[in-house]
Amino acid sequence: MSLAPVIGMMIGDPAGIGPEVCVRAAAARELAGLCRPVLVGDVGVVRRAVDVCGLDARVQTVSEPGQALPAGTIAVVDPGGFDVAGCRFGMASAQSGHAVLSWIALGEALGRQGKMQGLVMAPVESASMKATGKIKDLDALQPAGTLMLRMSGNLRVVPLTEHLPLTDAICAVTPERVFQVIEMVDHTLRSWGFARPRIAVAGINPHAMFPQDEERIAPAVARAQAQDIAAQGPLVPDAVFRQCIQGQWDVVVTMYHDQGQIAIKTAGFEGACTVYIGLPFVMLNVPHGTAYDIAGKGVAQHQSMLAAVKTAAALAAGRSMATT
Amino acid sequence: MSLAPVIGMMIGDPAGIGPEVCVRAAAARELAGLCRPVLVGDVGVVRRAVDVCGLDARVQTVSEPGQALPAGTIAVVDPGGFDVAGCRFGMASAQSGHAVLSWIALGEALGRQGKMQGLVMAPVESASMKATGKIKDLDALQPAGTLMLRMSGNLRVVPLTEHLPLTDAICAVTPERVFQVIEMVDHTLRSWGFARPRIAVAGINPHAMFPQDEERIAPAVARAQAQDIAAQGPLVPDAVFRQCIQGQWDVVVTMYHDQGQIAIKTAGFEGACTVYIGLPFVMLNVPHGTAYDIAGKGVAQHQSMLAAVKTAAALAAGRSMATT
Repeated sequence: MSLAPVIGMMIGDPAGIGPEVCVRAAAARELAGLCRPVLVGDVGVVRRAVDVCGLDARVQTVSEPGQALPAGTIAVVDPGGFDVAGCRFGMASAQSGHAVLSWIALGEALGRQGKMQGLVMAPVESASMKATGKIKDLDALQPAGTLMLRMSGNLRVVPLTEHLPLTDAICAVTPERVFQVIEMVDHTLRSWGFARPRIAVAGINPHAMFPQDEERIAPAVARAQAQDIAAQGPLVPDAVFRQCIQGQWDVVVTMYHDQGQIAIKTAGFEGACTVYIGLPFVMLNVPHGTAYDIAGKGVAQHQSMLAAVKTAAALAAGRSMATT
Repeated sequence: MSLAPVIGMMIGDPAGIGPEVCVRAAAARELAGLCRPVLVGDVGVVRRAVDVCGLDARVQTVSEPGQALPAGTIAVVDPGGFDVAGCRFGMASAQSGHAVLSWIALGEALGRQGKMQGLVMAPVESASMKATGKIKDLDALQPAGTLMLRMSGNLRVVPLTEHLPLTDAICAVTPERVFQVIEMVDHTLRSWGFARPRIAVAGINPHAMFPQDEERIAPAVARAQAQDIAAQGPLVPDAVFRQCIQGQWDVVVTMYHDQGQIAIKTAGFEGACTVYIGLPFVMLNVPHGTAYDIAGKGVAQHQSMLAAVKTAAALAAGRSMATT
């Protein structure tokens, strides 16, 4: 019998609600058997969150994320160097930004080393990140070479590009790029437990009825099919998302950011999350912010974090079909 | 007390299910008091549809659409010239295409003359229309100078352009055009009974965060606001449709076809319909096809047609708030 996957929770901006939702999720009994949770962040910040939430839990730093600990103990991997006394709730700071960068780096390193099978990112604060002088905007936190897969209900979408002006995004649609994305999506969904992922490839234009749709997309789909990937396209962009919701597709590859994001946000299912794909481990974000206004009060809801950890555990274990 | 609005139903392709759904809707008791229905088409085709559906109804041609008739009588305005004996169910033909063109022309003329306050278009067949040699594709049936407003549930969207390649559609976004559309939408929704329509204007790009969004859209919104139109924008495209569904906006002006159509079709409410706006009467389409495979069998469902007639009646009477 294989051990449950190790799922890290990067505690996020230490002045926000991230540490609180992480400790509540780590202490949740329903994770037992699904995964081995571990926090990635400063142990002092974690202890403060446990106090703030009034949890009956011990906190212990570990050197190996998967290390066995007594029940009721929250494990933390901590690179050190953070001054919790200097961190006020609800205040952005360069110290917090630098710490988040070091925690993300540690989480990614542990993931790449195979010591964690999943990493869930609690919310970070844009102002803290920018104060480091190393980050222009939050887009810069996306790991190099990855794509963002959003999922909500039955709907899974992966755009070719993220925050590009629409005209530039259309220019970036090339047969080579479309093929790369189809291949990465196929590989990823197989690792999540889909035997043969059914991949819809949206067109660019209304009803996918212009020459551009055929020229840029059809060759990529044909190439994928020749490699036994179950891709179809170019498909009618305004119809394909409802088809996915109804179970006709497992995922939709989209040609620009809003094509899929309009579908995800308008469908309005509970529990959306974003997964970075193209890494040797599962990495995803929780869909809420740092909520500085309620940080330190112990009132933040941890359902989104808990759902994200469960999703990460299911994907890492190749059980996605059973839980999403 | 004003009379109920006269709502015409253009019977659509005579070889399809259009005539059947029109006679069933015209005979429906639930329209009593809401509108005075009249069919626009060939009286022979209408009689055949009544027979096929096994309805207990008389059919009578009228010269004035609003003319009072005994209960149980279906009124038809008929320009003449159609050979029903030569029209086989499920077969496209130039004769049918020419007839549809004449019926649309008659319906539009009666609407412009104020003799009908609404016109609902039963489905037409692309092959019949093209066989006339006058129509390249169904887009050509859109009345000149109109925009297409789609509605479904709480969601109403109006794109600046229809079936243009996306790159061309973006080029067509100018402050002048955005303003014209806002103004037409405001005027239309006021006529439907919205006291002061709340108009969301979507941006072009992801998160509406690029210079183009400000340059092309903000000036149009400012100009509209100066005329006391309750427009806001540029708004985040992937968020604005859910806001509309939740009641924050009455309508969303979209910058390209798929922006709104992805939202409409993914939201998946029952009873979508399309209204041509910019005319002095209400004109809308039913959201289904000619269903040639079941035409002439009397089994076609008329719920969509009935819903469309009720919608047309409500909009024409300025009662849209109560019924959509």
